[in-house]
This record gives sequence, C-alpha cells and structure tokens, in this order.
Amino acid sequence: MDLISTLQAQFQSSLDTFCGRAYTENSDLHRACTYALQGGGKRVRPMLTLLSNAACGGNAAQAFIPALAVELVHTYSLVHDDLPALDNDSLRRGRPTVHVQFAESTALLVGDALLSDAFSLFDPQLYPCGVSDSQYLAMSLELARAIGGSGMVQGQFEDVDWTGRSDGTPETLLEIHRKKTGRLMGAACVMGGISAGASAAQLDTLRTFGENLGVWFQLQDDALDGAPDTGKTPNKDLDQGKLSLVRLTSATQAQQITQTYETRVRETASRLDPKGTGLVALIHALAQRRK
Amino acid sequence: MDLISTLQAQFQSSLDTFCGRAYTENSDLHRACTYALQGGGKRVRPMLTLLSNAACGGNAAQAFIPALAVELVHTYSLVHDDLPALDNDSLRRGRPTVHVQFAESTALLVGDALLSDAFSLFDPQLYPCGVSDSQYLAMSLELARAIGGSGMVQGQFEDVDWTGRSDGTPETLLEIHRKKTGRLMGAACVMGGISAGASAAQLDTLRTFGENLGVWFQLQDDALDGAPDTGKTPNKDLDQGKLSLVRLTSATQAQQITQTYETRVRETASRLDPKGTGLVALIHALAQRRK
Repeated sequence: MDLISTLQAQFQSSLDTFCGRAYTENSDLHRACTYALQGGGKRVRPMLTLLSNAACGGNAAQAFIPALAVELVHTYSLVHDDLPALDNDSLRRGRPTVHVQFAESTALLVGDALLSDAFSLFDPQLYPCGVSDSQYLAMSLELARAIGGSGMVQGQFEDVDWTGRSDGTPETLLEIHRKKTGRLMGAACVMGGISAGASAAQLDTLRTFGENLGVWFQLQDDALDGAPDTGKTPNKDLDQGKLSLVRLTSATQAQQITQTYETRVRETASRLDPKGTGLVALIHALAQRRK
Repeated sequence: MDLISTLQAQFQSSLDTFCGRAYTENSDLHRACTYALQGGGKRVRPMLTLLSNAACGGNAAQAFIPALAVELVHTYSLVHDDLPALDNDSLRRGRPTVHVQFAESTALLVGDALLSDAFSLFDPQLYPCGVSDSQYLAMSLELARAIGGSGMVQGQFEDVDWTGRSDGTPETLLEIHRKKTGRLMGAACVMGGISAGASAAQLDTLRTFGENLGVWFQLQDDALDGAPDTGKTPNKDLDQGKLSLVRLTSATQAQQITQTYETRVRETASRLDPKGTGLVALIHALAQRRK
C-alpha cells in the first residue's frame, strides 16, 4: 500500500475507536454522531494533517488526534450547512443528511456535540500522542481561530449573504472560499506541522498552502455541481443562486483562475514534500477527482 | 461596592473589550454575536469562575479569560435552544431572540461562532492572564468535556426527547438538569479553581458544587416558569409539555427536593468560602431571585 492508503486505513481505525468510546449511549444523539462521522467521504482534511506531519519529519502517531479533531469539525460544519435554515440539503455522500435521517433538532445538536468534542481531543491523559502540553494547546488554538466568527463561520455567513445577489465579483467568491473552506484546511496542515515540531516559518507556509488548496478545492466543487454521481443533489448550488466563477466571469477566465490556484498548490506541495509520496500525491489525486 | 458587584462591573468591561476586538466586521453575523452577548442577564456562570478563583486564593486577573469563555458557551447554548427546531422561543431577557431579531440562518451561525470562539480565548499570547500553558490547556479541556456529546448537549437532547412524555420520574428530570445546566456550571467553577492553581481534590469539590448548583438553579427556573416579569415567555415550558418536578410529583415533595439541593449547595459554599463574601453571597442572592 502507498503512504496515503496506509494512513487512510489507520485513520479509519482511529475514528472507529473514537466513536466506540465517545458515542456509546443508547440515544439518537450518539447514533447520529456516529452516522455523520461514518459517512465515508474523502477524508481530505485529516489526510492533510497526517501528510503535513510527515512532510515536517514527524511520525504519524503524533497526528491522529489533531486529524480526528479536524474531521469532527468538518463533519459538524456539513451537518449544520445541510439544515433547512442554511442549504436545506437532503443528500450527502449518497445518503440522507442527518436532519432527514433523524430529526432537525437532533442534527442541530449533533453539530454542537461534534464541534465541542473536537476540543476534548487535545487531552494528554486521555489521548496521548507524544507531544507537549504546549503543542496540544497550540493545535487547539489553531483550530479554534480558523473556524470561528472571523474564520469558517464568517465564510459560511458570507456564502448565505451573497446567495441570489448579482453584485459579486470573482474576488468576493475567492474570499468566501478562502474563509469557508481554506481556513479549516489551513488549520489541518498547521496542526500536522505543530505535532511534528515544525518551525514558525514552516507553519506559515503550511497555512497558506492549506488556504490556497481550500480555494482550489472549492472551485473544483463548483465546477462539479452539475455532474452526476457526486453523492450530492445535482445543480443544487446553481438552483439556489450561489455565487460561482462560471456565473461571475467567462468560462475561459474561470478555468484560468482555477489553474492559477492549482499551480500554486502544486508548487508549494513539491517544496514541502520533495519525494512526492505525501502531499504531492494527494494533490495529484485531488486534481483527478470527479466528486 | 461588594466583591460581587465589583467583579460584575469588571467582567462587563472585559466582555466589552472582547466584543470590540472579536466582532468588528460590518456584518450581521458580528452584530448578532454582540447582540447575543450583550443581552445582560445575571452573568451567574462567569461569576462562578471568578468567585471560585477567589475561594481558592487566586487573583481575579487570572480568571476573566475562562469567565469570558464560559459566558460565550452559555450564550451559544441559549441562541441554539431558542431556535425553531428546539424551543422555538421569541423572547429572551425581555428582548427578541437572535433568530427573531436577525434571521434563523444567522442565529445558527452565531451559536457556532460563539462556541468556536470560546476556545480561541485560551491563548497565552493574545489573552495573557498569568497562568501556564498547561493551565490554559486544562481549562479548555474542562470546558470541552462538560459541554459535548456526553455533557450539556446530551442534556439538551434528553430535554427534547422527554418533552411530552409521561413516563419520566423526578430522577429523570434531575439527571437532565445535571447535564444540561450543571455540567457547564461545574466547569465554570473548576476553571476558576484551575486558574488559581487549586489541588485536584479542590477541583473535584468545585465540580460537584457547580453541578448541584446547576440542578438547584434549574429547579428554581422551573418554579418560575409561570411567574410574570422573568423576561421569558410565561408558561412556555408547561405549554410545551416539558418535564418539571411539579408535574412529576407532589408540591410538597417538589419543594423538599429543591430544598435538599439548596442545603447541599449552601453547605459546600460555606466550606469553600468561609468568609462568606464570594460564593456564599452569590448563593444567597440566587436564593432570592424572582427571574
């Protein structure tokens, strides 16, 4: 198995252990937390944490805990985004969304639980991963700063706020993508770096890399909105009047902007991962994705 | 001014500074975060943090940051509880609830932002309060564990789950109150203790004290449900079919149970605060409350 497949299998096993430990009550809340977390998906964000750790010369054992935290946060954000008050989506990764499968009240609380529980993971006693208290704290803070009212949630707010409006520019959209998707991917990379004891300069590079990757990833998502077999409701974003490059500019310019981000991300990945087995391989896989 | 009034004024000033720093964007999200936080209220939970710090021989400067964190979390929980999917309440502290004043999507995101931002506060660089990295981490973990899928959120879930059912017992209700209200109050007290460098035994006492206080506080709230001038919708809980002691047992037994908790809380407060200026005075004030 290559590095990515090995880490994916190990991450899945960490996630299984975590769910079996954290969500054991005979309640719909706990069943729904597990349902949301075990929906499969590409696990891109935890892979970013694990591969950034590897790129900085760490060992994977240090990075499964922050990788779990980032996946919990990502999952919470999907569960809340799918709610009727936001995107009102009934399909996610080919399965009913949490509020459809369970109840709207349950889905709201699942998001709240996953978000809170993410911060319980930075626990040297309960989840030892061979790093110092200061490193645990630094990872927890990196995550919190990336996802709060000046980060991911503000991006989500702007996404809603700009829906249906016609005065947006490509820059508006890129900034929304940077906050909504890029900030969490940036934190995912930085947490991997912190776990490996990376320098402040390396952490800055990882943050920018993750943010650019997030923008590129989201531009790809927009382009796939009309595609079949993505596991999501087809043309959902278009029908809802969401901003997208194709609506804001010409097809040629849209492709050009996406290409710029891809190039930037590939170049940084090559610098961070000169052997090309980790981050570079992941970027290569993402460039091919059809969902 | 007595100790409590002094700390309340200082806490309000910390909160003003925080809002002026964290929620500066010209967006409804940031305006609504400030609106939710500045709704007044009794500030019981931050007072618990500050007075527990004092009881353990600390100085207040160590405790404003965890006090802010607990108030952010408390406020997030109110904003989400008020949403149509949960309690569907339009009035809170005499003002329109966040989803009524702004929008449902905004209220959902306000809760998400406040919850995330609470964990950004444990930052030795940005919010120095003279404690070690390990103490910051311990406070962050205490908070996270108290409010997640095995704590406050599970309590909130059970509260919804038992609404309208007739097979509950007083024990069911007390356990819901312990999780939904007690866990966060327990964490509020423990964080105050941690900031003052309290021993593990002291922290355990503070946790039990806060949990019992939460149960007692919620039993009082239930008893006030029908009262006028509480700033909440009158008889809201009764109309929604929520569990309450008065429905589950005789008036005499309900009073007896409430009295047991009050006595327990008063006794522990006297042990923790022998001079009676801090926690004891707060409990005394709470025993008199009419809203």
